[in-house]
Amino acid sequence: MSDLPTSVRIMEVGPRDGLQIEARIVSTADKVELIRRLVDAGVKAIEVGSFVNPKAVPQMADSGEVFRQLPLRSDIEYHGLWLNAKGLERALANGHVKVAGKLHLTASDAFSKRNTNKSIDETLASLPAWIAQYRAAGIATDSLSVMAAFGCNFEGYVPVAKVVELIARGKDVMEREGGVLRHVGLADTMGWGTPQQTRDLIDAIRTRWPDVIIKLHLHDTRGTAIANAAAALEFGVADFDSSIGGLGGCPFAGHKGAAGNICTEDLVFMCEEMGIDTGIHLDRLIEVARFAQELVGHELPGKLMKSGSLARFRAH
Amino acid sequence: MSDLPTSVRIMEVGPRDGLQIEARIVSTADKVELIRRLVDAGVKAIEVGSFVNPKAVPQMADSGEVFRQLPLRSDIEYHGLWLNAKGLERALANGHVKVAGKLHLTASDAFSKRNTNKSIDETLASLPAWIAQYRAAGIATDSLSVMAAFGCNFEGYVPVAKVVELIARGKDVMEREGGVLRHVGLADTMGWGTPQQTRDLIDAIRTRWPDVIIKLHLHDTRGTAIANAAAALEFGVADFDSSIGGLGGCPFAGHKGAAGNICTEDLVFMCEEMGIDTGIHLDRLIEVARFAQELVGHELPGKLMKSGSLARFRAH
Repeated sequence: MSDLPTSVRIMEVGPRDGLQIEARIVSTADKVELIRRLVDAGVKAIEVGSFVNPKAVPQMADSGEVFRQLPLRSDIEYHGLWLNAKGLERALANGHVKVAGKLHLTASDAFSKRNTNKSIDETLASLPAWIAQYRAAGIATDSLSVMAAFGCNFEGYVPVAKVVELIARGKDVMEREGGVLRHVGLADTMGWGTPQQTRDLIDAIRTRWPDVIIKLHLHDTRGTAIANAAAALEFGVADFDSSIGGLGGCPFAGHKGAAGNICTEDLVFMCEEMGIDTGIHLDRLIEVARFAQELVGHELPGKLMKSGSLARFRAH
Repeated sequence: MSDLPTSVRIMEVGPRDGLQIEARIVSTADKVELIRRLVDAGVKAIEVGSFVNPKAVPQMADSGEVFRQLPLRSDIEYHGLWLNAKGLERALANGHVKVAGKLHLTASDAFSKRNTNKSIDETLASLPAWIAQYRAAGIATDSLSVMAAFGCNFEGYVPVAKVVELIARGKDVMEREGGVLRHVGLADTMGWGTPQQTRDLIDAIRTRWPDVIIKLHLHDTRGTAIANAAAALEFGVADFDSSIGGLGGCPFAGHKGAAGNICTEDLVFMCEEMGIDTGIHLDRLIEVARFAQELVGHELPGKLMKSGSLARFRAH
């Protein structure tokens, strides 16, 4: 009944998706130190920062510098985010950014317009230009990421069929432009997902495109993130975004203090306890979460950083 | 692949299992008010208090009075806890306590001795006296609850086979005394459980005793409680203990501030979003969680009380 993977790839997004909503500006040196400690704990892929308007996201104003201060290592990927051609140019010029050929879509028209100032149709129409820009940099576009894939505060529940249809349209564009869809990312941007919906979504995508690799970007706004991750693991899903200490928040939750991304160390704990290799040293990661908490100056929602791992009890 | 139940029975344990570890003594009136509000939100079974040594658990010193102040209703069950014959006598004499014929075992010998001053064998040997005392009160003993059924800080991981064997031994005693085992409770007392272990445990018990009704008492010490609940729901498990706001803690976690029981409103949210009826009004329950937070005077770990439900977004 269960098809758990033997290992998972975890992308740590705390330094970007987590920190970007924090009011207290974390210094460049502290960001670099946080990432250095994540790498020391065994994290192999980190979303370091974004190349966006510093006025819109002050916390990411120093992203270029943070990337440049990170030691280049062949086994570590430093990822970033960009929303327009200029941002991608800056990422390409930086030299330390792992630029993946990834396209972004949103499953809710209302949220797409609010968040990106483009409808779904307009976003689809913009994809060829992105693909061309990636190709000019020698990068094949093979990844499609769908925001608000579970539900949207501005449109309500997002049906599975709508997400599948959107992926199909994105895939068509990619193929017309000479690309191949290999990766699909599903983001529960506003924390609507349940395990059943996660199963339904994965099942529908797998049924239609058996070879596509599914990645989940889960938010814990309503406490279901770890349950959704567990449901995905059962389907053999082995790619997750997560955030150290549960850094982050949800600007759409309607209440201050709502939880952000799924917590990295809690996810690592669950995986490792089920025999799924993460490549990460849990006790070291817990220390990094406590460091992240110091940096932001308020309590983070992660559980392991309060309870500790089971290692010391096993040693008895 | 999934066998979700159409409805679940949730036993709210916050007033007892949650409050008992709180340093600030909540007044009798506030306890009664908390329970009244839980009932108003649609909760049908509540663990109100315990009949134990008030010196050991000062927060429960007024339990008898709390029970007596609750309005008797045929559709509401007020449950309690007792650890010896004298406690059971007090519960029986109270008049407002739903006394269920439930026996307690612990899957770890080390924890059993520490927590109850009895080994597993000694506990099994004490069961006939409990059954006789219940029978004298006209109550059939039909329920067996296993503490530390997933893991133990003093013994480590608890194998599934050990739990099954313990249940078998308890069942034998019950049958020798004229009882029938109908309910098995599995408590993850120290927060060791994972979804895979939950599946394995349920599967093993179901395979051996297909008609036994399984109930889960989950702790969120390491963030997996909701994922374990989701795994159990997939097997059709429909009985859960949970705690309003995530009230409670874990005296064994090794770090102050560790999470306690699985949070009632977060569990209700997940169930209702998957079409599983809880009989509970979520938005009212969220208000009760905020009231509970006021009573204890510190932040509770529940997520919904920070993010809110999805009702207002659906109304759009």
